[in-house]
Amino acid sequence: MTAGTHWWERPDLRYRDGRLEFGGQDLAPLASAGTPAYVYRAGRVRDNLERLHAALDAAGVPHDVYFALKANRHGPLLDALQATGRCGIDACSPAEVRLALAHGFREEQVSFTGHAVSEADLDILASHPGVHVNCDAISTIRRLGRRGAGRRIGIRLNPGIGAGYNERLQYAGDKPTKFGVYPDRFDEALAAAAGLGLVVDTLHFHVGCGYQGDALAVLEQVLQNTMRLLDAHPGIRRLNVGGGLGVRMTESDVPLDLDRWAAVIARHAVPRGLRIAVEPGDYLVKDAGLLLVQANTVEDKAGTRFVGVDAGLGIANHWAYYRIPMVAAPLRLQPGAPRQRVTISGNINEALDLLAEDVELPPLAEGDFLALLNVGGYGSAMLSNHCMRGACWEILLPGDG
Amino acid sequence: MTAGTHWWERPDLRYRDGRLEFGGQDLAPLASAGTPAYVYRAGRVRDNLERLHAALDAAGVPHDVYFALKANRHGPLLDALQATGRCGIDACSPAEVRLALAHGFREEQVSFTGHAVSEADLDILASHPGVHVNCDAISTIRRLGRRGAGRRIGIRLNPGIGAGYNERLQYAGDKPTKFGVYPDRFDEALAAAAGLGLVVDTLHFHVGCGYQGDALAVLEQVLQNTMRLLDAHPGIRRLNVGGGLGVRMTESDVPLDLDRWAAVIARHAVPRGLRIAVEPGDYLVKDAGLLLVQANTVEDKAGTRFVGVDAGLGIANHWAYYRIPMVAAPLRLQPGAPRQRVTISGNINEALDLLAEDVELPPLAEGDFLALLNVGGYGSAMLSNHCMRGACWEILLPGDG
Repeated sequence: MTAGTHWWERPDLRYRDGRLEFGGQDLAPLASAGTPAYVYRAGRVRDNLERLHAALDAAGVPHDVYFALKANRHGPLLDALQATGRCGIDACSPAEVRLALAHGFREEQVSFTGHAVSEADLDILASHPGVHVNCDAISTIRRLGRRGAGRRIGIRLNPGIGAGYNERLQYAGDKPTKFGVYPDRFDEALAAAAGLGLVVDTLHFHVGCGYQGDALAVLEQVLQNTMRLLDAHPGIRRLNVGGGLGVRMTESDVPLDLDRWAAVIARHAVPRGLRIAVEPGDYLVKDAGLLLVQANTVEDKAGTRFVGVDAGLGIANHWAYYRIPMVAAPLRLQPGAPRQRVTISGNINEALDLLAEDVELPPLAEGDFLALLNVGGYGSAMLSNHCMRGACWEILLPGDG
Repeated sequence: MTAGTHWWERPDLRYRDGRLEFGGQDLAPLASAGTPAYVYRAGRVRDNLERLHAALDAAGVPHDVYFALKANRHGPLLDALQATGRCGIDACSPAEVRLALAHGFREEQVSFTGHAVSEADLDILASHPGVHVNCDAISTIRRLGRRGAGRRIGIRLNPGIGAGYNERLQYAGDKPTKFGVYPDRFDEALAAAAGLGLVVDTLHFHVGCGYQGDALAVLEQVLQNTMRLLDAHPGIRRLNVGGGLGVRMTESDVPLDLDRWAAVIARHAVPRGLRIAVEPGDYLVKDAGLLLVQANTVEDKAGTRFVGVDAGLGIANHWAYYRIPMVAAPLRLQPGAPRQRVTISGNINEALDLLAEDVELPPLAEGDFLALLNVGGYGSAMLSNHCMRGACWEILLPGDG
């Protein structure tokens, strides 16, 4: 392990002279100012957003991008996204709708897709007529329709098959999942909408979270099935392909080839003149955020070296609850330092509370700082104060243009 | 399913005339006032506490009980516990120590056992010299010792074997776990303490979370191993057996027989004149709390009836993250109503977000209220605002003496 040789290094996140830099900034002074701390870089979020636009543009796909706000709702980051004018917001709760509006997004830029939508939720949605609502159940269609005719809505379809980073993150596999309307009740859903004067303009689906390059066959199959429904209902002109686009998290992950991904969509959408909506969450923010922590306890226990740090699953639950790996990187790297295998443990009193297991790192001492990479999404957004260990900072790096 | 026939009914939690009552109070008016809502009953917490004391007293075991605050830190509930004068607090972070003191517990009533204890944590612990600290690592002993000699401490031992409700909750199994000092380094830990003038008066272990009646053989084995260490070090006069005592969560769970549990401990502790500490969390509060939710969407999807409710894994993560079952009980029960199998889904946009899967209930309609039982521990304490769906009420029932 020497500088410049990690698979995850890139121009804006790399070692220089043994110092881990993010957006050209040495992270050590930030860590010294206080850990645990989430650090985000808006420039990387914008790059990810533009890469997505570029791939769909190159494939000739007319489209809209909605950032899945549930992945990260740090205010300055939302402001930076809003300032681009290049994306809207995918909201899954009325509170998320209101937060998006508070950050300057217009109702027309907000797409809502929620499950178990309550009467109180629908009252709020009814008060924001410009927000586009994708209905996840026939019940939702009926109850939204009772609040007034004329609204344009989408129907979330359950594709019955799914992909995802692992089994905890698949949305539609063999077992029935809670999301959307299955194809066998799609006509019933359309009839419910028509009966109440709602205009169905969008079909929505979502195949899973964090799908990688090997999931394109699943996407292809879902698209084929979906086209049968769309061809039978040519009035629906918009297809929302959900989110779930994965970010590479380990060296062995097969990265998602965005051009191939766009080509799969284009093959179905372009000949039919469909407009595509896409709802990336992690894809925009995951690799644009890292978590700075400090090692406080380094000790060998039964042959395993445990590095205890000042954050736990209440702050970053990716590994503990979802088995989504985080990359651990020391902020200081000595050239030619030997490696050792360590497990990074959090400060929550639960056996599950590990941040990384059996990873290779240079020797660490108590007091050393580490960055946990790929936590810009579903990190601070899911914060819990379990064991009263939930306090952490959030920092959007300034001045990266 | 008729009134009075559920395995979980008991005098203070039962149907009467088709109404679910908790502490003699019909829950429906509470639910109508606002859901989701956690409802606790102090009387049940006190009963659980007294049952534990009685079992240890009957077995002749001198003992102290410390409530594991991380299970539930609702202020009025802590006040009620403090008022009993019958337990102290088990804290795992400095913030928990301070919360306990703020609720009137004295330093001498607080036992601290934490992992990955930072320098900042130790500074706070040093400022509370009456708090008893169980050290989870030799590193902790050294760093605490540097802050002054003379303090009486415990050493957390990793017993190398474990029990627990399921594999996600075992603390010490085949794979090395982060907790405590393994027996092979126990002498080193003692020497570190002695070298810094710390007095080791307690040995601490914890075998797992939610262990049921079939785990007593594991407890027995851990005690046997522990006694070898204690017999070699007769100066250690106190044994902290941790927490983890399980509450019955399904009809098929083998309930923990508290008298047998106490007898196992007594057999080792009494002849040696050891004083026992025990740290129940769930055992005191789990079945003393329930979560009121409202069904808003009842819909059949691919052969499964999903009942969508107004709470999700951000409010109650027991099933989603830990595979710990919650019992679902409608607040109104018609005599002789037929049963149907349903899955209760939460309002978080994640496939994992289910509250109960494939459970038998009478027919439910949209608008109906449900209680999810056995969530008095590790419910509100782990609250997350994921998807901005984290708002909920907490209510301690008044007037149950």
